[in-house]
Amino acid sequence: MMSGFLDMISEPAHVKKLTEDQLEQLATEVREELIIKLAKTGGHLGPNLGVVELTIAMHKVFSTPHDKFVWDVSHQSYVHKLLTGRREGFSKIRQTGGLNGFALRTESAHDSFGAGHAGTALSAALGMCAARDQKKTDEDVVCVFGDAALTNGISYEALNNIAQTTNKFIGVLNDNEWSIDKNVGAISKYLNKIITNPSYNRLHDDLSRLVKKLPKGDFAVRLGNRAEGALKAEVSESSLKHQPPAPQDGRGGTASSVIFEELGIRYIGPLDGHNLPLMVKSLEYAKSCDHPVVLHVLTKKGKGYNAALKQPEKFHGLGPYDAKTGQTPSAKSGSAPNWQDVFGKQMLKICERDSRVVGVGAAMPSGTGLKYLRDEMPGRYFDVGIAEEHAVIFAAGMATMECHPVVAIYSTFLQRAYDCIIHDVALQDLPVTFCMDRAGLSANDGPTHHGLFDISYLRCVPNIVAMAPRNEDELADMMFTATRHKHPTFIRYPRGAAEGAEIKEEPEMLEIGKAEVVQNFKDNGKRKIAFFGLGPMFTIAQKAAEALGEDFDCTLINPRFTKPIDEATTEYFAKTADQIVTLEDHVLPGGYGSVVSELLVEKNISTPLLRIGWPDQFIEHASSVNELREKYGLTSKAIVAQIKSTPAAKAKSKVTAVA
Amino acid sequence: MMSGFLDMISEPAHVKKLTEDQLEQLATEVREELIIKLAKTGGHLGPNLGVVELTIAMHKVFSTPHDKFVWDVSHQSYVHKLLTGRREGFSKIRQTGGLNGFALRTESAHDSFGAGHAGTALSAALGMCAARDQKKTDEDVVCVFGDAALTNGISYEALNNIAQTTNKFIGVLNDNEWSIDKNVGAISKYLNKIITNPSYNRLHDDLSRLVKKLPKGDFAVRLGNRAEGALKAEVSESSLKHQPPAPQDGRGGTASSVIFEELGIRYIGPLDGHNLPLMVKSLEYAKSCDHPVVLHVLTKKGKGYNAALKQPEKFHGLGPYDAKTGQTPSAKSGSAPNWQDVFGKQMLKICERDSRVVGVGAAMPSGTGLKYLRDEMPGRYFDVGIAEEHAVIFAAGMATMECHPVVAIYSTFLQRAYDCIIHDVALQDLPVTFCMDRAGLSANDGPTHHGLFDISYLRCVPNIVAMAPRNEDELADMMFTATRHKHPTFIRYPRGAAEGAEIKEEPEMLEIGKAEVVQNFKDNGKRKIAFFGLGPMFTIAQKAAEALGEDFDCTLINPRFTKPIDEATTEYFAKTADQIVTLEDHVLPGGYGSVVSELLVEKNISTPLLRIGWPDQFIEHASSVNELREKYGLTSKAIVAQIKSTPAAKAKSKVTAVA
Repeated sequence: MMSGFLDMISEPAHVKKLTEDQLEQLATEVREELIIKLAKTGGHLGPNLGVVELTIAMHKVFSTPHDKFVWDVSHQSYVHKLLTGRREGFSKIRQTGGLNGFALRTESAHDSFGAGHAGTALSAALGMCAARDQKKTDEDVVCVFGDAALTNGISYEALNNIAQTTNKFIGVLNDNEWSIDKNVGAISKYLNKIITNPSYNRLHDDLSRLVKKLPKGDFAVRLGNRAEGALKAEVSESSLKHQPPAPQDGRGGTASSVIFEELGIRYIGPLDGHNLPLMVKSLEYAKSCDHPVVLHVLTKKGKGYNAALKQPEKFHGLGPYDAKTGQTPSAKSGSAPNWQDVFGKQMLKICERDSRVVGVGAAMPSGTGLKYLRDEMPGRYFDVGIAEEHAVIFAAGMATMECHPVVAIYSTFLQRAYDCIIHDVALQDLPVTFCMDRAGLSANDGPTHHGLFDISYLRCVPNIVAMAPRNEDELADMMFTATRHKHPTFIRYPRGAAEGAEIKEEPEMLEIGKAEVVQNFKDNGKRKIAFFGLGPMFTIAQKAAEALGEDFDCTLINPRFTKPIDEATTEYFAKTADQIVTLEDHVLPGGYGSVVSELLVEKNISTPLLRIGWPDQFIEHASSVNELREKYGLTSKAIVAQIKSTPAAKAKSKVTAVA
Repeated sequence: MMSGFLDMISEPAHVKKLTEDQLEQLATEVREELIIKLAKTGGHLGPNLGVVELTIAMHKVFSTPHDKFVWDVSHQSYVHKLLTGRREGFSKIRQTGGLNGFALRTESAHDSFGAGHAGTALSAALGMCAARDQKKTDEDVVCVFGDAALTNGISYEALNNIAQTTNKFIGVLNDNEWSIDKNVGAISKYLNKIITNPSYNRLHDDLSRLVKKLPKGDFAVRLGNRAEGALKAEVSESSLKHQPPAPQDGRGGTASSVIFEELGIRYIGPLDGHNLPLMVKSLEYAKSCDHPVVLHVLTKKGKGYNAALKQPEKFHGLGPYDAKTGQTPSAKSGSAPNWQDVFGKQMLKICERDSRVVGVGAAMPSGTGLKYLRDEMPGRYFDVGIAEEHAVIFAAGMATMECHPVVAIYSTFLQRAYDCIIHDVALQDLPVTFCMDRAGLSANDGPTHHGLFDISYLRCVPNIVAMAPRNEDELADMMFTATRHKHPTFIRYPRGAAEGAEIKEEPEMLEIGKAEVVQNFKDNGKRKIAFFGLGPMFTIAQKAAEALGEDFDCTLINPRFTKPIDEATTEYFAKTADQIVTLEDHVLPGGYGSVVSELLVEKNISTPLLRIGWPDQFIEHASSVNELREKYGLTSKAIVAQIKSTPAAKAKSKVTAVA
């Protein structure tokens, strides 16, 4: 029988009133809420099921919004949202008008720092600690970061600075056992060594016993300084000292906490993250510390839900599912493949034929589609972890040795490697190809994941070629062209389903900087509109042209390249037309339409230009890209209406084309 | 008596022919060459004096260009340049037509990877190893990285990936004793602990004895597998096992190599980097290893030159000096202060008056000017090391807690933190001010250090305000304005001397997005030219306007803001003028002139626009900014000539202004 504690929690203060048993009951209710509600909306179910006890314990021990919780990536903040007065909006999480799927400062005072990219939490939390120390106030700052965040260099930059900056810093390393084998690199092996250390089970038992022996109530205050002695002795001595002998290979490699300790941060762990009383006691201890501390907490993705436990990767983040069975609706037959799968399969095909080509990714083999290469040609696939900068410089290094790396990183995450693109790849003019998935909107995720800036941030960079395919066949052509080009190349394409175009058996080499004229003017005396529809916006342009067909004479140009643009074709049609329209899945400032603007001014062409794209603001999340396109006027219907309302639409057509 | 071995070295193969004694003599000659030649050109003297023996030993043991040397930052590659056939160009290093001050692939086949930003070497070298393993070839890759590189997260991302990627990786940690106390963070303390470990001196003696006992010649081959046993036993056992007891505070913190070893990389050290035979033996050992290895080498900046030893900071990098005394010419009295000093002093003034404001820097207290704050108000100054991303997110964290951080990072280095600007600062609309020194050219350094992209990469980012002062007084106004603005703000200004303007006692609040009309049209019937001179290019515009004064009617506008631009003022003067000229110290694609182009198209203004700025290519290094301005047509003289040659210059003026 549910006693409905979750119904009673309209603010985190209410959590504090519950007894230990009631908190356990609350955990059960929260799990049920997660499983049932997310079945309708989709979302990051697995990670949130993993932090139920941890989050409840955090709200038991600390008081937000006075105290600050900083969640790395923050896709694991759903439980926190449920406990901080946002249960109502939770039923529409990641949907239009509902809660955002990440922490968001504008959504709640309890969200002290937003995130969507990994590795930022330690830095942000340390900044808060520094500010608190400046102000001499007493806020506690708790930073929850995953083991994957430790593959990112920013986490390390922060760890390097904690001890010198503050005496009071509480880190919680939420180490998800199941991500261990998916994570890459030495640090994940290192954490795994700690966990698989034979002393851990003993430690765990000891801690359970310790917790039972401890007095109830405010652990830290009652025990005073002895708290440290008691918990630390149990925890660190067993984890630090009871190690297996060093392996024979002389590489060190014994399980210990030394990395954190060497950086001046007291390490406690590993701790069972599903033991609620232990979490409470550990956090109370951390709160009492007058030195930086990291709790190493072990959690299970999907804890409490069999379907998720069986398929942790699927249930990390997913769309709607059947709550009882965990089954998700199967893809409609005949629907277009996702861009990422088109990329992934073409990538495999290219690698099979061209021994120079290798794939480099930053922890997203499924999301980027590199999994096809990983599975079929693992020796040609390099996953470096959530380490975009390293990925790009690593690729640059490979490119100096006759390899042609294809780096597959989402547009938004590639922002991380911007300097490496300029300083390491472009400046040295190295043959590295960047395939940027999620260029455009990532509707359910929202502003942290939209890829709306890449045309702008790349166009100032010398030596590069940047392109956008209008369908999956052209993506294949562009990948083929890019991997034959001896200079840096970038290909952007959106999230989700492609256009459904048939892919040629053999890709074609495209001429760099050459646009495709898909439909020319009919010269039927009607007002001429030149549509330049970039990437998948070409389809929108096509629809708009069809809708305008009776009253206007439309040409349809697929620009293909944003750097360099096809100046001759652009100039010709710009001069010929009465109205130019550029369409792009990108912000307007500095985007493709801006490149065209520069050209028009340069060539003294005064044909009016209507630039269609996203406005100069961060775009919110929504249920679908279409809803946002409607809201912001990026549908063919809205574009048609806008064209019809321009003064030029009513004027007479130019009579003759340019000489 | 010099026997002139350096004269004989026209390629690195010649180094291999020298005996041990001759190599020592070569080291002496190289030092002399560095001290005498750099006295005329300036350059990174200290770091290069520190790596003389290391570099000679590298060329003794390895064979470039077949083997690859990757230098982190690569300002310490002068010795390598001297030994790889570039001695002639060395007398003009960092000057027009001379060698670049950093490794440069286009300069020599012996420069396998260029750099100028810290922390990239491990990633690039690992990429080369991966490519070599793919190709199954046998190149050795030696990566030399400094202790400062270890404050940067990319180094850590690479370290995390080495063991899983290759079995053959040679890292040389060039640990400059003197930079220890200047470096910040836990890792520098950690290295310091290793060095100050009492067992080090014993280790050093042991190694010296070991080296003497070892057979001459090909160390590794002769000793075979025993090489590892011999050297490793001496080195790692003493450094790993003979530790002082763990401190009582329970933080661990004993000197050991565990961080590298835990990451799966064999650690050897610390080693005396000025012991040439030891360097040779150690590198031969590393070459023989079939597992990744890091040699921890201790060097002294300025080794062999008393003036540099006494003032290591000054001699890290400097202009011309007197080779005998080490004295540098004193600054001309009455000359304008450097922008960085103006910033630094204003920053201190603002902090004294406004308790919310703090300074955040990334390892450049002198270069940025934050040293004034550090010296006077150390509690308000945060130096996080060469960790630009962490710096920005740390600042964002502080900004959520009622602080207003001013982040001082060079324009080129801020590229590192691009995602943090978007994802952490702008998306959350936090009050953080960025002061970007070196926006424009860093002439002696060259393309790795020019700051020519920031207007473009920032203008697509929502919520931000970006500005550029035309003189030091306006910099003070902008800093005052920015620190009162509740949103992200960016101020760009160049390297070197400011304009010599007097700075008001009290700064003024500027209206956001409002340009300054410095000189209006005279309406004298002559052809009207509207100059929009951004930042210090305003002075160039002013000179051009003066030179055109007799034949044209010029207006002079100081745009101040690049985001948002002053649309009304721009529109008004654009419509009124017969010719618009924008001037910016930035690349043309996506720069300030591009923003103006967008506006002209948007408003259907057909007045011709001449955009003056840097072309779409990487700009080389030179003796001075003026030489490059002359070459690329950014002088007032060139601009005047260009204006006079435009068709518009010959046409008749518009008769009336717009309504």
